[in-house]
Amino acid sequence: MALIVQKYGGTSVGSIEKIRGVAERVVKHHKEGNQIVVVLSAMAGQTDFLIQLAHEMTDDPDPRELDVLVSTGEQVSVALFAMAVKTMGYDARSFLGFQVAIHTSNLYGKARIHNIETDRIVKELQKGRIVAVAGFQGLDENGDITTLGRGGSDTTAVALAASLKADVCEIYTDVDGVYTTDPSICPKAKRLDFISYEEMLEMASQGAKVLEIRSVEFAKKYNVPIHVRSTFSNERGTMVIAETKDMERVMVSGVAYSKNDSRVTIKKVPDKPGVASQIFEPIFKSGIVVDMIVQNTSEDGLTDMTFTVPQSDFYKTMKLVSGVAGKIGAEKVLGDEGVAKVSIIGVGMRSHAGVAQKMFAALAKENINIMMISTSEIKVSCVIEEKYTELAVRVLHKAFGLDDEKKANQ
Amino acid sequence: MALIVQKYGGTSVGSIEKIRGVAERVVKHHKEGNQIVVVLSAMAGQTDFLIQLAHEMTDDPDPRELDVLVSTGEQVSVALFAMAVKTMGYDARSFLGFQVAIHTSNLYGKARIHNIETDRIVKELQKGRIVAVAGFQGLDENGDITTLGRGGSDTTAVALAASLKADVCEIYTDVDGVYTTDPSICPKAKRLDFISYEEMLEMASQGAKVLEIRSVEFAKKYNVPIHVRSTFSNERGTMVIAETKDMERVMVSGVAYSKNDSRVTIKKVPDKPGVASQIFEPIFKSGIVVDMIVQNTSEDGLTDMTFTVPQSDFYKTMKLVSGVAGKIGAEKVLGDEGVAKVSIIGVGMRSHAGVAQKMFAALAKENINIMMISTSEIKVSCVIEEKYTELAVRVLHKAFGLDDEKKANQ
Repeated sequence: MALIVQKYGGTSVGSIEKIRGVAERVVKHHKEGNQIVVVLSAMAGQTDFLIQLAHEMTDDPDPRELDVLVSTGEQVSVALFAMAVKTMGYDARSFLGFQVAIHTSNLYGKARIHNIETDRIVKELQKGRIVAVAGFQGLDENGDITTLGRGGSDTTAVALAASLKADVCEIYTDVDGVYTTDPSICPKAKRLDFISYEEMLEMASQGAKVLEIRSVEFAKKYNVPIHVRSTFSNERGTMVIAETKDMERVMVSGVAYSKNDSRVTIKKVPDKPGVASQIFEPIFKSGIVVDMIVQNTSEDGLTDMTFTVPQSDFYKTMKLVSGVAGKIGAEKVLGDEGVAKVSIIGVGMRSHAGVAQKMFAALAKENINIMMISTSEIKVSCVIEEKYTELAVRVLHKAFGLDDEKKANQ
Repeated sequence: MALIVQKYGGTSVGSIEKIRGVAERVVKHHKEGNQIVVVLSAMAGQTDFLIQLAHEMTDDPDPRELDVLVSTGEQVSVALFAMAVKTMGYDARSFLGFQVAIHTSNLYGKARIHNIETDRIVKELQKGRIVAVAGFQGLDENGDITTLGRGGSDTTAVALAASLKADVCEIYTDVDGVYTTDPSICPKAKRLDFISYEEMLEMASQGAKVLEIRSVEFAKKYNVPIHVRSTFSNERGTMVIAETKDMERVMVSGVAYSKNDSRVTIKKVPDKPGVASQIFEPIFKSGIVVDMIVQNTSEDGLTDMTFTVPQSDFYKTMKLVSGVAGKIGAEKVLGDEGVAKVSIIGVGMRSHAGVAQKMFAALAKENINIMMISTSEIKVSCVIEEKYTELAVRVLHKAFGLDDEKKANQ
């Protein structure tokens, strides 16, 4: 008998019929002798509808009240799910954030889970019941409702699995696992049987959209095995687990990319202490997320500084930087609105030399110019022209032996 | 400075625009120096929509989960209301049943309020905030969500007013007060300035639909003055208060009626102990509500027994009674599908003789036959043919001097 936490997203519970389907699947796992805790998101579209309602009331809804409003979405899902299980002759109970209780910080809309009480859930499981927990929501120290931000139900599920010491946290989604890269641009992408937390974090932050990044951090911290699998099949998916020796045999586990970036370069910046903070302070203050920052070695006391920001913030950033550039005596500001980032990821890099070199060579062979490079222990990222993104992903996928040769060429 | 609890029903908060209107009214009262606690129902139609959703899932939704589901309606209202107040530059906080907390029995769908904690609300009021409480919902001793049944928001408001020792509980609705009778069938009906709890209870249970009956019982028990008034005007409405000497000057305060009743008569029932229980047991067990029961004096050990049930339960009742009639040796069962009940109500009856006689005479003058009569200390009810309902109401209204002579005849 295993204790399993299962999370189903909005598309998996998008209609009465789909909720019934989820209930059937859960009952099947329950009948196999497992204790099941189900975490549900709001029915697809519901959260957006509620947010729209708030914006009909005011352009700037009060964050506390917005959380009270949007948390009703998951409440509806868990109630309907428990009803569905009951009609099948099994016993289920729904629980909201306050009932569990899931204690969080009081940062409305992006609260962090502090701790979870598990007494009530454990009691219900011991009675042979299926437990359904509303995802995405918690309770702060004042007893106010909070929400965890978009994708927060993944975090609810993993945090519950950690607190309950569950055997596994299953994340049911509309894809059947984590792939070596995006199958829509590289048809030979393979589903991974295993991936380490560290790799998954890099994959997630580099643009793979399977798991909410905070949930992976949580899983890593508490060593919760995550099983990413499809709502629409019974096939095994991908296990996200702690690093094993086996994983190091493979040099690179996956290729990630992000488009819609833009690049800003400030030429001939006087290389003095405090210059970087002068440049980035107004950008950070505007809430713009700076991704990669590269500074060349200083020559004659002058250096070039280049960084990337989301394309949507490009013009705002250019305006802010141009203002600062004059003050600090830089020569000029150059911008490139459309760049992309491709990354190779793998814990095997730690034990294999020459990985970066192999990446550069593969891109060079296709005449793809590398504009910026950044590396970490288990990742190498290159900024390239946006138009080469798909080509670069396919080239790297093949160069590092990730192609599934059973799949035909596109 | 007064402490006022204000309740707004579903039609008063039926749209974003209407919620904004309620917020404006509440802010106005707040600015006049009052402490305001607002109780809101779900937006009009929302509760029905949620119940329908449950019935799409199953014909017989689990009661616990149904309460989890439908309680989201009021949650949406209070969140949007608090947002609206904030946009006007005033501070408001929404609270759900579990946050207040409103402790109830665990009879899902028809829970009774046991007690209300007021610490949090008092603290918020002391900070100068407007407090919005979700109506209709509470929390049982297991920490599960309960609802109070249809019209339960009235009860929430009155119970809150009692617990907070509020100066008044204002019930805002789509009519401007309690009338001597239904103005739609008697155009000369007058709005009452005052009515006693007892009279209001009789009016409510006799078919007047202004206040939920349990809320009046609660108000009577804790002596909470209720002010029934219109959401759409600033006029004074009707005060529902404890009986005063003044009220006794008037013989009759109002005329109530209920249609859609039916009548069943069992002829020549052997008048033995246990017969009544034999007749009514199957009816009660079927959940049919029996209103009036009349048993004639026994003659030769045989008696006639007559009672009324809702029209919708007529055929079911006839079938059940016919089954029993044979067993107990009654002669036959007669039925009348369409009857109505008209009642005159007034605490003044206690000190005025001949009220019932005056009622019978007024009906007789119009050739309206009286089929059954029942009386209480402050009420006389007559069952008549359904087609005479409107005529009887107008005749009684005039006979007891209730007509507003400033109003033209219809």
